[in-house]
Amino acid sequence: MIRVAIIGASGYTGSESIRIILQHSDAELVYLTALPEECGAVEDVFPQFKGRCNLQIEPLDLGKLSGLADVALCCLPHKISMGFVPKLLDAGLKVVDFSADYRLKDIAVYEEFYKVKHTDTANLSRAVFGLPELFREQIKGADLIANPGCFPTGALLAIAPLLKEGLVETNSIIVNAVTGITGAGRNPSIKFHFPNMNENLFAYGIGTHRHMPEMEQIAGEIAGSAVKILFQPHAGPFDRGILSTIYCQPKGKVSAEQLIGLYNDFYAEEPFVQILHNAPSVKDVAGTNYCHIFATCVKGKVVIFSAIDNLVKGASGQAIQNMNIIFGLEETLGME
Amino acid sequence: MIRVAIIGASGYTGSESIRIILQHSDAELVYLTALPEECGAVEDVFPQFKGRCNLQIEPLDLGKLSGLADVALCCLPHKISMGFVPKLLDAGLKVVDFSADYRLKDIAVYEEFYKVKHTDTANLSRAVFGLPELFREQIKGADLIANPGCFPTGALLAIAPLLKEGLVETNSIIVNAVTGITGAGRNPSIKFHFPNMNENLFAYGIGTHRHMPEMEQIAGEIAGSAVKILFQPHAGPFDRGILSTIYCQPKGKVSAEQLIGLYNDFYAEEPFVQILHNAPSVKDVAGTNYCHIFATCVKGKVVIFSAIDNLVKGASGQAIQNMNIIFGLEETLGME
Amino acid sequence: MIRVAIIGASGYTGSESIRIILQHSDAELVYLTALPEECGAVEDVFPQFKGRCNLQIEPLDLGKLSGLADVALCCLPHKISMGFVPKLLDAGLKVVDFSADYRLKDIAVYEEFYKVKHTDTANLSRAVFGLPELFREQIKGADLIANPGCFPTGALLAIAPLLKEGLVETNSIIVNAVTGITGAGRNPSIKFHFPNMNENLFAYGIGTHRHMPEMEQIAGEIAGSAVKILFQPHAGPFDRGILSTIYCQPKGKVSAEQLIGLYNDFYAEEPFVQILHNAPSVKDVAGTNYCHIFATCVKGKVVIFSAIDNLVKGASGQAIQNMNIIFGLEETLGME
Amino acid sequence: MIRVAIIGASGYTGSESIRIILQHSDAELVYLTALPEECGAVEDVFPQFKGRCNLQIEPLDLGKLSGLADVALCCLPHKISMGFVPKLLDAGLKVVDFSADYRLKDIAVYEEFYKVKHTDTANLSRAVFGLPELFREQIKGADLIANPGCFPTGALLAIAPLLKEGLVETNSIIVNAVTGITGAGRNPSIKFHFPNMNENLFAYGIGTHRHMPEMEQIAGEIAGSAVKILFQPHAGPFDRGILSTIYCQPKGKVSAEQLIGLYNDFYAEEPFVQILHNAPSVKDVAGTNYCHIFATCVKGKVVIFSAIDNLVKGASGQAIQNMNIIFGLEETLGME
Repeated sequence: MIRVAIIGASGYTGSESIRIILQHSDAELVYLTALPEECGAVEDVFPQFKGRCNLQIEPLDLGKLSGLADVALCCLPHKISMGFVPKLLDAGLKVVDFSADYRLKDIAVYEEFYKVKHTDTANLSRAVFGLPELFREQIKGADLIANPGCFPTGALLAIAPLLKEGLVETNSIIVNAVTGITGAGRNPSIKFHFPNMNENLFAYGIGTHRHMPEMEQIAGEIAGSAVKILFQPHAGPFDRGILSTIYCQPKGKVSAEQLIGLYNDFYAEEPFVQILHNAPSVKDVAGTNYCHIFATCVKGKVVIFSAIDNLVKGASGQAIQNMNIIFGLEETLGME
Repeated sequence: MIRVAIIGASGYTGSESIRIILQHSDAELVYLTALPEECGAVEDVFPQFKGRCNLQIEPLDLGKLSGLADVALCCLPHKISMGFVPKLLDAGLKVVDFSADYRLKDIAVYEEFYKVKHTDTANLSRAVFGLPELFREQIKGADLIANPGCFPTGALLAIAPLLKEGLVETNSIIVNAVTGITGAGRNPSIKFHFPNMNENLFAYGIGTHRHMPEMEQIAGEIAGSAVKILFQPHAGPFDRGILSTIYCQPKGKVSAEQLIGLYNDFYAEEPFVQILHNAPSVKDVAGTNYCHIFATCVKGKVVIFSAIDNLVKGASGQAIQNMNIIFGLEETLGME
Repeated sequence: MIRVAIIGASGYTGSESIRIILQHSDAELVYLTALPEECGAVEDVFPQFKGRCNLQIEPLDLGKLSGLADVALCCLPHKISMGFVPKLLDAGLKVVDFSADYRLKDIAVYEEFYKVKHTDTANLSRAVFGLPELFREQIKGADLIANPGCFPTGALLAIAPLLKEGLVETNSIIVNAVTGITGAGRNPSIKFHFPNMNENLFAYGIGTHRHMPEMEQIAGEIAGSAVKILFQPHAGPFDRGILSTIYCQPKGKVSAEQLIGLYNDFYAEEPFVQILHNAPSVKDVAGTNYCHIFATCVKGKVVIFSAIDNLVKGASGQAIQNMNIIFGLEETLGME
Repeated sequence: MIRVAIIGASGYTGSESIRIILQHSDAELVYLTALPEECGAVEDVFPQFKGRCNLQIEPLDLGKLSGLADVALCCLPHKISMGFVPKLLDAGLKVVDFSADYRLKDIAVYEEFYKVKHTDTANLSRAVFGLPELFREQIKGADLIANPGCFPTGALLAIAPLLKEGLVETNSIIVNAVTGITGAGRNPSIKFHFPNMNENLFAYGIGTHRHMPEMEQIAGEIAGSAVKILFQPHAGPFDRGILSTIYCQPKGKVSAEQLIGLYNDFYAEEPFVQILHNAPSVKDVAGTNYCHIFATCVKGKVVIFSAIDNLVKGASGQAIQNMNIIFGLEETLGME
């Protein structure tokens, strides 16, 4: 039984991780932490778990943690996380970190987009980007996983086959995505106040979203050369899900049939990536760790659609998939 | 042209009042105020008015107000309002006050439910409860209107004919209501954060909602004797509207046909109250000043359903209906 | 491994049953049927199951069924079901029937509310009403379970302790409920077309809803004497969940504290019924088999709030809970 | 007083036209028609108009129409409309046609995309494309207006300044749009059944949407040469609004400041087009005839965002704006 600690358990990725571990046959929750003002019985913080989880969410006590847990799902925010991850590693735990702090290998890019000095470059270099479908082998032996961002997960799974095969131009990829509002986190704000967000839809992060360099870095690793991505996120009036619509310029001739064949082959062994023959819907993946992809040709462009649940495949589910890999468990446990 | 000032224009009742006055043929906006941190060009505070209203929302300057406006729609919160209303009256304006400060005639009840001393009892006694369908004559000559609460508006219009005719027991009325989330105001909060409120429904204010004594006071006036109301509000995942489902015990025999006749007669001359032959829907009244009512008999009880838009008939529309009455205008202007 | 057939698998209760059985450790899907025009690969009918379930939904072939499955979850509509249940029983299967055909013991009431002659009165008498919290012992030995309606489940769990203790008058219970729209089934209709239902809320089935006699029958069994219930359902703009707000007249003095004690005792051993200290939210039970209940006193009445997911505790989850009981499995399997 | 007939009044564009004409100071409804099975009192077909409109919706009687109305808003579906428009013109009415039947000047393209022979080519040649901001002069003298499609309206207003100035490549424009569900019309369907569409988002019409050739034709007229547009629509879980996110390749260097200047100049005199300094929101234009546009530069591309209400600026509002122009009225009447 893998013993799981969740650090920063009071947000949406925390509760989603609790939900999944509760139905995981080979893992159990042993320790949940949060800021003091967000602590309390799990059932008081998250009434949906009343009768399902009797733990307390407590302020983090590193002394207690050592020996108590095998792995930490670290759900702390960007910039905060890198202050705690080294201590979690020192306490002997495997760490799956949900923040961006260990994703960007180029410190200058990190510091430009996150406006803060990186304080744990030592661990940065050994962190593995936790997208199992692309980096499973590295994940197997890792102590520290940089769990991917939600938008990069959906977009990278969608374009990886094209980049790997060198089928599309790498200087003109457009990723147009719409996310549900759990992606904005659990803290209330004027933009996401119900009467403002309900019946609404808008673009944000124009030219500046932090998932853009993350996508470009990993896309570049896959392609073997620099990739330029115009990433434009939008917020839509639903809880869960990201639909990415991606436009690429093919290098040569390519047909819709070829694309379906390519994608089917590329993901043939992947339990969580499903290739469709028509447009995916975010509702079909909501609450699951699945990514649904459809690729086709329109007016001389390759257009790929991908749908994931931002809190599951885009966060907690993928983290637990990574955890399963690290500990040699069946990769789908907790998310069948 | 009636010159309208909106005091406290930065909330939802403020923007709804702006919207209605903009389409009012005989009234114009002349002055909009808010707390300093919420001021700015109308189009910056409310982008929906870009190109439609070129005013600034400014901090209130009482000196400027006098002579500039004929009427103030005072959209300030409870407890704050009574600090400003006397000054608005002194400046020579008619005042339609959206707060509860001038609704409860019994100061002890006010102080119990609002937990604050009433500081303007002088004006309290002359304030008129602004439900035109029941108090039109008093409104005509009034300087100060206590604009009704949203729940009381929907409930009182629904039960007034029964109380007036003495058809139901007055000690066992149950008002079960569901409101859209604009009713909670424009300030973000954890309960009404989109991912918490979306796909949700819950009761609140159990036994303690401040609209309960307001309903009871006016119901008592209509009935001519004390009325006891169990009022239970709920919040539902939509922007606008209140659906009230009201259960009463008839004193004697009453049929569904009698009820329809009674309601049709009672509201025959009312432009904004429409009697239906089946259940009303909140969507049919959204964005309008209408109240849709259906009354029938079920299992020995009288059951009445009423639907209003909480921001229009439950707030800004009713306020402007009151304004129209005070100034002798066609009562429906701005809300055809 | 319990082998499960789902008869009528192409609707919402069918897909919800598939979802639960897929995560059930001791049960497996072996046979799925539907009308010919709704058949096909599960992944084509329900894309959410692509990669998760490789079965076909086929037209029912009773010959194939015998020996293939241990239990049938019969998700057929009212009136249709009683034509198939006898055959499923004859084929040697245990049957959990989702329709109303075996719920109402009084054939005259059934025929009045369902406007059709009952054609399987033989099995009607041996069917057990599948509300485990109240009838677990009878369920254990049953071949045929009449799985309760969604509204009766939420309402009966909420009032059972009061009726059992004889604390409230049984001639004046009011059940005011709001359901999400999956409750209306998977067939499109004008009322539930997205732009009509979105941002809407309305009452329906006024005085005529078929769950009213079902509630009254079971409430009467619990109370030991006739119970009269005014049940008023409403439809709200969300997918899943029923919130019931129930008003009762206490026979004598009763306090909120007594009620909480009573409910905690009554459901102390029940995994799926949780007693709260404040109002339940439908979102907290969505996707789960839990019922959240809060009981209190307001203005001399007892008011009880209960929340369930109409598709889980109100249908498929409860059916599988019943299945678990029949086969001697851990009652919570598949729904932890 | 302009006398308005609405032909095909029983759908969403019909009810939206009714709503606008009801608040129009210089126009009045005189005749409403629909298929026989959709006729009845307006208040029965559209309860939101109870007490606001006492007309009947009747089967079309061309004999009655002549002399009764000055203008027909023809809300009939594609393919049906061209069977009626000649008769409406013969009856001496001006016609604003909401269908696509008079939009595509190239009959071959029409017949390819609509799979039917065009039966009124005579009137096709004199029909004017009713986008006032671009074709106001032609509209002034027209008898027959081809009211633009909703997606083309949002997209064309967004790219017109760029095309007119020749600033972008015309062979690689991508229009990614998300529409609310009123765009799908009033007939229920499985895709737009509330529990299927709620909390959902998906692409449709991939490579085949009929608004693609319409956009290309008008864009070509504006640019003075052929324009190729990859148009990809999506459906989102809200009632009203289209957000278009448009990606163009600039021919030379262009800055965000230049773009804002260009757009401000281009639309300086237009009441219904507002140029923003940040991303538009569909909610800000919902219920209005406004189009909000923001244009900027991201990663070497020009990206333009535009928001309209699909039923107002995308249909009924624009139709009435056209009507106002034809009859020499203030262009904004009915939509202030």
